Amino acid sequence: MKLAPRLALMTSAFVLGASAASANELREYALEFFKPLPSTVPAVQDNKITEEKIELGKALFFDPRLSASGVFSCYSCHNLTTGGDDNMETSVGHGWQKGPRNSPTVLNAVFNAAQFWDGRADDLKAQAKGPIQAGVEMANTPDNVVATLSSMGQYVEWFEESFPDEDEPVTFDNMAKAIEAFEATLLTPAPFDSWLNGDDDALSAEELAGLELFMDKGCIACHSGINIGGEDYYPFGLIEKPGSDILPEGDRGRFAVTDTVDDEYVFRAGPLRNIALTAPYFHSGKVWDLKVAVQIMAESQLGEDLSEDEADKIVAFLGSLTGEMPEVTLPVLPTETMTTPRPVAEIIPN
Amino acid sequence: MKLAPRLALMTSAFVLGASAASANELREYALEFFKPLPSTVPAVQDNKITEEKIELGKALFFDPRLSASGVFSCYSCHNLTTGGDDNMETSVGHGWQKGPRNSPTVLNAVFNAAQFWDGRADDLKAQAKGPIQAGVEMANTPDNVVATLSSMGQYVEWFEESFPDEDEPVTFDNMAKAIEAFEATLLTPAPFDSWLNGDDDALSAEELAGLELFMDKGCIACHSGINIGGEDYYPFGLIEKPGSDILPEGDRGRFAVTDTVDDEYVFRAGPLRNIALTAPYFHSGKVWDLKVAVQIMAESQLGEDLSEDEADKIVAFLGSLTGEMPEVTLPVLPTETMTTPRPVAEIIPN
Repeated sequence: MKLAPRLALMTSAFVLGASAASANELREYALEFFKPLPSTVPAVQDNKITEEKIELGKALFFDPRLSASGVFSCYSCHNLTTGGDDNMETSVGHGWQKGPRNSPTVLNAVFNAAQFWDGRADDLKAQAKGPIQAGVEMANTPDNVVATLSSMGQYVEWFEESFPDEDEPVTFDNMAKAIEAFEATLLTPAPFDSWLNGDDDALSAEELAGLELFMDKGCIACHSGINIGGEDYYPFGLIEKPGSDILPEGDRGRFAVTDTVDDEYVFRAGPLRNIALTAPYFHSGKVWDLKVAVQIMAESQLGEDLSEDEADKIVAFLGSLTGEMPEVTLPVLPTETMTTPRPVAEIIPN
Repeated sequence: MKLAPRLALMTSAFVLGASAASANELREYALEFFKPLPSTVPAVQDNKITEEKIELGKALFFDPRLSASGVFSCYSCHNLTTGGDDNMETSVGHGWQKGPRNSPTVLNAVFNAAQFWDGRADDLKAQAKGPIQAGVEMANTPDNVVATLSSMGQYVEWFEESFPDEDEPVTFDNMAKAIEAFEATLLTPAPFDSWLNGDDDALSAEELAGLELFMDKGCIACHSGINIGGEDYYPFGLIEKPGSDILPEGDRGRFAVTDTVDDEYVFRAGPLRNIALTAPYFHSGKVWDLKVAVQIMAESQLGEDLSEDEADKIVAFLGSLTGEMPEVTLPVLPTETMTTPRPVAEIIPN
């Protein structure tokens, strides 16, 4: 858990003056906290990314047969047409059960230090195994997934091509690795990246003013790095606890992972890329208005009562984090065979 | 309702002889019943197809916000990665309710004489309005759909571009027209088309033998035209009624549309393009094995007890109807605004 350092107040010369020198100064200062997206697919731990693996992962990402019911795929809650999430408070899963937390975007998720709101998965390959097995989400089992994939020759071939050194490549772990490989390609370069990379015209004066406020008010204490967040854990309500509608008492966040009192109501700071596309906000998904979310954060985390104008400017800056969506062509999935396990829509108690 | 004419028995010279003359004779005979897919997107009634409309329709097809819950889009049950259907007995919809009939493929559906298993929609634009409003499917209302679409400026712009002569282009009818325009592009040219178009090598000897059987046994009485079916209505169980597991008594088919006793248990003949991809079969979705489905059809519709070899050959022929899937790039959907109606997952009684 980290506390917000109070940053030296910056002069507004950066924004108003707009001289080349001051623009560069603001950029240099910003680059102490933020990093632009890299221009290439990042390497991930213990999982060499190959074209074959990316293609297999894409097929798996879109395959509803990874769920017990045949209704849900990764794409269902991480919808690539709507910002990589599902635009609901919390997702609807197997048996119309509601999940406990808001679905985070899969876009650029490879740059988060850990996955899930409580960081309980170290990386995307660990994350991928969660929803597939969660009773309220896809409600499947590793054995049934492997039986499903093994029943289709085309999948077996794709696994062999993706994991050429393995004797039995069709495994639950390799499924997760392939999904991670595909997800690592889902990057969305944004105007803010262009600006960080040196294009003075990429951000408007209002967006730059918002950036300055974002740094000055202290938002960067938690929201920094490539994903402007997603890097570390902080208590929600550091200065002032929000109401229980926004921070439900039953969900104690990272406490469930570490069993440490200090981690009560501690969550991973939300990564802010494409935040304008991914309402509703917070782990509870209770706030639909980005400006309201910004105001709540300022109050609860920083004890700041933002003016309307300040909040508008920060929202404008956040809009500059909306990136270009990756072009995704739908895969053509292998066809079931007579040995493919049938979809089961019934709710089976654990 | 039409009855199956008994066709003159054909010689097997077509298949075994394989001379150019006999191949042409078989083709000429086949062309009396079948038509290859056209090479261009077909015109549809009262809906001029334009690029703008296709793109808008694609966005709508993928947009889960057309459902009340935000969970389902057209794509959910007409999944373009798995043959244009959902590979379930009957679809799962709003509130985890099960639909009454198996979801038919959207691929090439523009060539069906009418839509739905009972033909209750004249065309795809009429069809598109059904599931969106059905309580067990997307459970939405036209007013809420229009409010949703009107709340996003990008959608309003797209409707204006797609329906340039209209003062208020964002309507439920125009939504349906745009979806029809997109769906009309979902064509899958198959080896059988190549063969009909003159390529002798496009079908194997077994597939040709299956085609011959398909014509000789009388399957073509109901399964003909561009879609090898989907053209007219016939009683399921013309000669011998299948068991109530396959033909549930509660679903009297087209009777519900025409209220005519003659139409009891009458259904639209299934279009057979891509049939190898779209198990399970029949309106009840109770048969998973294509060979078994072929045997049931032969018995119930033609009084034919096919040999294993005959059934295998017909299945081989049906495999030649599996076409090349259209390349579909995911749309980037407009983002909700504060006036966009929120998703409602609750089941609201009618």
